[in-house]
Amino acid sequence: MATDLAPHSTRLVLDAPLPLDSGQALDRVEIAYETYGTLNADGSNAILIFHALTGDQYVASQHPRTGKPGWWSRMVGPGKPIDTDRFHVVCANVIGGCLGSTGPASADAQGKPLGMGFPVITIRDMVRAQVALLDALGIGRLYAVVGGSMGGMLALSLAANFPERAERVLAIATTARHSAQNIAFHEVGRQAIMADPNWQSGEYYGTGKAPDAGLAVARMAAHITYLSEAGLTEKFGRRLQDREAKSFGFDADFQVESYLRYQGLSFVDRFDANSYLYITRAMDYFDLAEEHGGKLADAFRGTPARFCLVSFDTDWLYPTSESRNVVHALNAVAAPVSFVELSAPYGHDSFLLDVPALDRVIKGFLE
Amino acid sequence: MATDLAPHSTRLVLDAPLPLDSGQALDRVEIAYETYGTLNADGSNAILIFHALTGDQYVASQHPRTGKPGWWSRMVGPGKPIDTDRFHVVCANVIGGCLGSTGPASADAQGKPLGMGFPVITIRDMVRAQVALLDALGIGRLYAVVGGSMGGMLALSLAANFPERAERVLAIATTARHSAQNIAFHEVGRQAIMADPNWQSGEYYGTGKAPDAGLAVARMAAHITYLSEAGLTEKFGRRLQDREAKSFGFDADFQVESYLRYQGLSFVDRFDANSYLYITRAMDYFDLAEEHGGKLADAFRGTPARFCLVSFDTDWLYPTSESRNVVHALNAVAAPVSFVELSAPYGHDSFLLDVPALDRVIKGFLE
Repeated sequence: MATDLAPHSTRLVLDAPLPLDSGQALDRVEIAYETYGTLNADGSNAILIFHALTGDQYVASQHPRTGKPGWWSRMVGPGKPIDTDRFHVVCANVIGGCLGSTGPASADAQGKPLGMGFPVITIRDMVRAQVALLDALGIGRLYAVVGGSMGGMLALSLAANFPERAERVLAIATTARHSAQNIAFHEVGRQAIMADPNWQSGEYYGTGKAPDAGLAVARMAAHITYLSEAGLTEKFGRRLQDREAKSFGFDADFQVESYLRYQGLSFVDRFDANSYLYITRAMDYFDLAEEHGGKLADAFRGTPARFCLVSFDTDWLYPTSESRNVVHALNAVAAPVSFVELSAPYGHDSFLLDVPALDRVIKGFLE
Repeated sequence: MATDLAPHSTRLVLDAPLPLDSGQALDRVEIAYETYGTLNADGSNAILIFHALTGDQYVASQHPRTGKPGWWSRMVGPGKPIDTDRFHVVCANVIGGCLGSTGPASADAQGKPLGMGFPVITIRDMVRAQVALLDALGIGRLYAVVGGSMGGMLALSLAANFPERAERVLAIATTARHSAQNIAFHEVGRQAIMADPNWQSGEYYGTGKAPDAGLAVARMAAHITYLSEAGLTEKFGRRLQDREAKSFGFDADFQVESYLRYQGLSFVDRFDANSYLYITRAMDYFDLAEEHGGKLADAFRGTPARFCLVSFDTDWLYPTSESRNVVHALNAVAAPVSFVELSAPYGHDSFLLDVPALDRVIKGFLE
């Protein structure tokens, strides 16, 4: 995809270099973000929403490339569970991303795209960038920080590393560390991208060729992990796609094949392969306990925030046991936490879909 | 990989064309097979073992390419659960395969590799070919047919379609039909192969280039499904590979990454990408109920065989519920069946690994 910024996103340049966990620093970091609702006089009604791996800042506004409604427009808006009549909502593209924030497609000082010259970043680095954004926007303490999936990792990381910055922490369908299986699925995706000759060691910008085929395969593999087996069976089963009988060929005979191919193909129109490499790497590196001496409870010791953890019973990517680990750690430091496992058929993607119980939990937690 | 036959496998050419479910027929089908033990005078001690997707006929003999022991040498041999002092064991490469039986690398009448000109085949077609092999070998009724994973599908298909040919049917870690999720994972693998420019629509034989990168990615994705999440965590967790700290790069920092890359790279030395396409397609087409009017029980109506089904509690590729479906169908037609779910930490791959309880079950069923 191209590197131009979506026209109606606001972009801010951080005035200080951003220190990174790798020991490097990023100069002139740009952050593209969207806001909704009005910040009140004492700045006490701000909610920061962190997006997921392939999400973006368009949480409740039309996506500039796909033309689709924001990825959480069912949740964010006037009168909605995250009520923009009441709250000032901020959502920013993570660094490493490809929707306007500094990432591998950004230019170096000579105007050349960084590509693999972009430093490997962490979830904590992404959080640091957004805390700097909050500083620039004059937002001290958040009413709440909210995120699902990778966004939940960022929310937990903010709570652990910037404990004074959020009164409430809502982490949905997430984990405090990436498991071996999580890493394995991401590694398949990275290898698929890097195996694509058009990847050219990441220097494909401006060549007219991008590793679309590899990125599509990466997306297909990941997409399976976002859905439950039962959900796939209910949605597709073994039904054939626009035909009466099997073709005895390699066309997409089954609806599930056709669906997956579409998911792969449409993804490459809105996402950059190098960003996919960098963001998956950041997620794989994520281990909140390791960052805090090996004990997860220590990540939250002394936290003044209230927490809410939500998992879904059919989520096998970040199953309920992962949320429960976080809850146990919060219990160990006597942090106020509520936890609910919701029943929904959609697997990990449930946090993005029509699950009215989630609306109620979010609305209740933000009261 | 090359198309030469492993030197010490026996090869037999079927004298009649093999009819296929697609309506086509295959002429001059060659079948490469291994045998162990001696067929007794009345031909009553033969056991046919069906191999899995990436398995082969070298069930208990050294693999000619890798030099490794046979994939089930722990189970098959003198004094072993499938005792070659007592039984005459036959194991043949499936048609569509790449270890000597007719497949996409085989030559057409003009001596040109068939490639994608090879017809799409089914599990039942693979069984038909091996029943023809049994005919040619003078084996009427098998003492038992045995298979795990895809081999289990072939065993069930033989029981359903050639009910007089086996006294005992042992199906391990398998299913009577491929689910939407099973199809989805296979489709990712096929798309990875077809996205590799070296695939060249399947016409890569003799070009010196094969779609190794795509096949390796396919293998990596599939390999994750063969292991349990708990097994991966126990085996690798988040341990780093030969380093003290994360590299902040894209090397294989984690042991699980290094392991998966090795699985992908080593696989391409012993397997042909087109065979992977054809065999996964056959598995995705497999639905034993559909073949028999939509009701699984009807597939087994009137069967004279005794059945044994084995599943593993950590197998999420073909979970216990799939074996239970088969057991219920057999119960519905009053076929004698025993069923056991074994506890083993290795996921789907348990049937190939050191699970002493499986040895006992197999030995007991073959008494």
